[in-house]
Amino acid sequence: MSKNNIEKLFKPVVGEDNVMTSETDRYAYSYDAAVLDGEMPAIVVRPENSETLGEVVKLCNDNGLPLTVRGGGTNLSGGTIPKPGGVVVLTNSMTKILEINEEDLYAVVEPGVVTAQLAAQVASSGLFYPPDPGSQTVSTIGGNVAENAGGLRGLKYGVTKDYVMGLEFFDTGGNLVKAGGKTVKCVTGLNLSGLMVGSEGTLGVFNKIILKLIPPPQAAKSMLAIFDSVKAASEAVAAIIAGKILPATLEMMDNFTIRTVENFRRAGLPTDAAALLLIEVDGHPAQVADDAARVETICRENDARELRVASDQHERNAIWQARRDALPALAKLKPTCVLEDATVPRSKIPAMIEALELISKKYQLTIGTFGHAGDGNLHPTILTDKRDKKEWEKVENAIDEIFDCALGLDGTLSGEHGIGMAKAKFMVREVGKASLDYATRIKAAVDPKNILNPEKMVRRNNG
Amino acid sequence: MSKNNIEKLFKPVVGEDNVMTSETDRYAYSYDAAVLDGEMPAIVVRPENSETLGEVVKLCNDNGLPLTVRGGGTNLSGGTIPKPGGVVVLTNSMTKILEINEEDLYAVVEPGVVTAQLAAQVASSGLFYPPDPGSQTVSTIGGNVAENAGGLRGLKYGVTKDYVMGLEFFDTGGNLVKAGGKTVKCVTGLNLSGLMVGSEGTLGVFNKIILKLIPPPQAAKSMLAIFDSVKAASEAVAAIIAGKILPATLEMMDNFTIRTVENFRRAGLPTDAAALLLIEVDGHPAQVADDAARVETICRENDARELRVASDQHERNAIWQARRDALPALAKLKPTCVLEDATVPRSKIPAMIEALELISKKYQLTIGTFGHAGDGNLHPTILTDKRDKKEWEKVENAIDEIFDCALGLDGTLSGEHGIGMAKAKFMVREVGKASLDYATRIKAAVDPKNILNPEKMVRRNNG
Repeated sequence: MSKNNIEKLFKPVVGEDNVMTSETDRYAYSYDAAVLDGEMPAIVVRPENSETLGEVVKLCNDNGLPLTVRGGGTNLSGGTIPKPGGVVVLTNSMTKILEINEEDLYAVVEPGVVTAQLAAQVASSGLFYPPDPGSQTVSTIGGNVAENAGGLRGLKYGVTKDYVMGLEFFDTGGNLVKAGGKTVKCVTGLNLSGLMVGSEGTLGVFNKIILKLIPPPQAAKSMLAIFDSVKAASEAVAAIIAGKILPATLEMMDNFTIRTVENFRRAGLPTDAAALLLIEVDGHPAQVADDAARVETICRENDARELRVASDQHERNAIWQARRDALPALAKLKPTCVLEDATVPRSKIPAMIEALELISKKYQLTIGTFGHAGDGNLHPTILTDKRDKKEWEKVENAIDEIFDCALGLDGTLSGEHGIGMAKAKFMVREVGKASLDYATRIKAAVDPKNILNPEKMVRRNNG
Repeated sequence: MSKNNIEKLFKPVVGEDNVMTSETDRYAYSYDAAVLDGEMPAIVVRPENSETLGEVVKLCNDNGLPLTVRGGGTNLSGGTIPKPGGVVVLTNSMTKILEINEEDLYAVVEPGVVTAQLAAQVASSGLFYPPDPGSQTVSTIGGNVAENAGGLRGLKYGVTKDYVMGLEFFDTGGNLVKAGGKTVKCVTGLNLSGLMVGSEGTLGVFNKIILKLIPPPQAAKSMLAIFDSVKAASEAVAAIIAGKILPATLEMMDNFTIRTVENFRRAGLPTDAAALLLIEVDGHPAQVADDAARVETICRENDARELRVASDQHERNAIWQARRDALPALAKLKPTCVLEDATVPRSKIPAMIEALELISKKYQLTIGTFGHAGDGNLHPTILTDKRDKKEWEKVENAIDEIFDCALGLDGTLSGEHGIGMAKAKFMVREVGKASLDYATRIKAAVDPKNILNPEKMVRRNNG
């Protein structure tokens, strides 16, 4: 379809001001946070309300135009890279928090609400929305639901999936489909909201989302445990979980990451340490005291050389600032930063760490490893330059080996970053052909023209 | 297909001993716990392992034979009533607990494992599997997953859906489909395990299920709060939740139920009370003490005339025995006992209770109301005799009004009993046509011959 025609199609629906077709605009929405080449869409549109959103979906379907919904664009697997010549649908004019219900513990939001803004609003109502993906200050709830976003609190509080009580989405015909609801228990109809979580925009376009809220923990305590060996640190992680303690967060940083973070912002991290654990326990004050004491004992039993316990909010913030610095600090070192998220059962963390060290040596690559050790979701981060073709080949081989290693340890290709375009071809190794076929049949049934974020995760020709 | 031919089809696969075709056997598997007429299957088969199970599914599909999987047969919505002339597949030879992993907090089980047996086994490993449907001593995990079973602990701990990390199921071709896994975080592929939970056997046949386990609470305290008005009791429920306390269980019983239970087993319940709340708080001992004190205060503020706190395990058991007695005691009163489970957001419990009283008066029906007040999931239980056609008509009208009332209060047709055959025709009122159409497209895509538990929940011709 010509540029003129495509503009004519959408302008009457979303209005002149909500259509972008300049090369600059289209370029700006051609890529996301994944290390993948972008693709130029034909048009970028910004519906301002439900009705218009539904009409946009129908227009795309009627005209066979591939549609990619974009929230914060923080996707790490290419899930928001459009199809060449396709339509990018922005949700940043649908940002209303429609309801925060303190009696029934839920929130109803539009898809474009920024995660951290919702969390803050919920907190000001005396409640708690736990999912905290690293990109929460810019990511949107719609994107979080589409990707089943995780975060630091996955271990104790679960991930986005665990908080979606219901949602409304548009099918390709622009009809509004309702699933789930405002009750904790609801078994009316297929669990379509469960299916939509993590479907990466391939099965429908979200209109509203109902999220479960919980009472916040009354107290919290943060600790930094310093280790002289990565093995000891990773064994301490396994021992904490096996000790039936579920910290709110249980994060790890290897020596390379520690040094990089300390270079980035002098925070007094021990640059000679082999590994750090950053731990927060929360709950009733008495439980926090007990758990903190037990965590400390377990860390010492596993050869922690030092434990630093935050004595006030300032020290607590310093610990978590260091953790939040990990990715930006690493990303500054080299032109290309490949943030992996292959995930293993938590007890396999020591084996995974060991494998990562071997892979790093074998391919002579710089890999900084940090992440959510408590739920087995590490982020080995490969620092490289994609323009260096020879090294990039090594990076691709290393990633391939990381995947095989995670799968060999009963783990998964992706804990929280999604499959998107980046990992679609690897999926068959984990789930097998029958599973891909089953998903493809669903995709074909609900999106016969293949217009909903095509080529992401569920492909027509899998395997 | 003739009886002879159908026997010949299955005997070589499952073995002579695992095929039942006598009228008595077929009759025994023709009905379930729903107040619905049964349907005679042509054959009942009992596969003894995965391989055979897959072959049975393929055989049914190849021969166009409708297939209904049956666990404990405790279904309250007709979900295990077979199609006339169809195949009942029993899971009671697939009862292995394959793994309880204490380090990584999961269990892997076959579908025929009895819920309470799994819970006991998990407890003996020092862990906790919270979902506790009323039928747990006979219900199976496969059935629980198919129905997304709830239970008393839904309020704090969630329902079956919240514990399914992954599963394997056979598609109609007898291919094994894998979904999810053993990691807390997993976003590889569509969330097919989410879709399968609560799909009532319409989309696949479970082979293995991976369940999340959690550390058990360290302490618990049970209480009985006695009220002179149902309104006061239901307002106390709403006030407890609004007070940001999440009891492990928060149950209610009305006067009719109290008297019936006391008649059934002399337990010292106050037969003159308008309503009882049965409450258990759990967690760290200090939290239990705090929460119990606050619950007591809130109950008194809402005009509880008396609070009895269990001082030992014996008294605690007595409280929960009374709750467990509710259904069997009510069921003894009349030939037919219709156990409803329309569910509302918790703050709407007072309004729902009021509506139930009006409906009971309007149709001059005996309705005992008890259930999971804390999560809005009441069980109004209509005592009647289905053979009395005139009264049965009133019952049907009353049920219709209960549904409308729950939906009017932002609730759902079914909190935990399922849609099955009993409520399929009412679904459109709650989810609308677009949602039914979407589900129907999925069903048709993965089960083109409509052999997987046909006519349950997802119908070919909805609405």
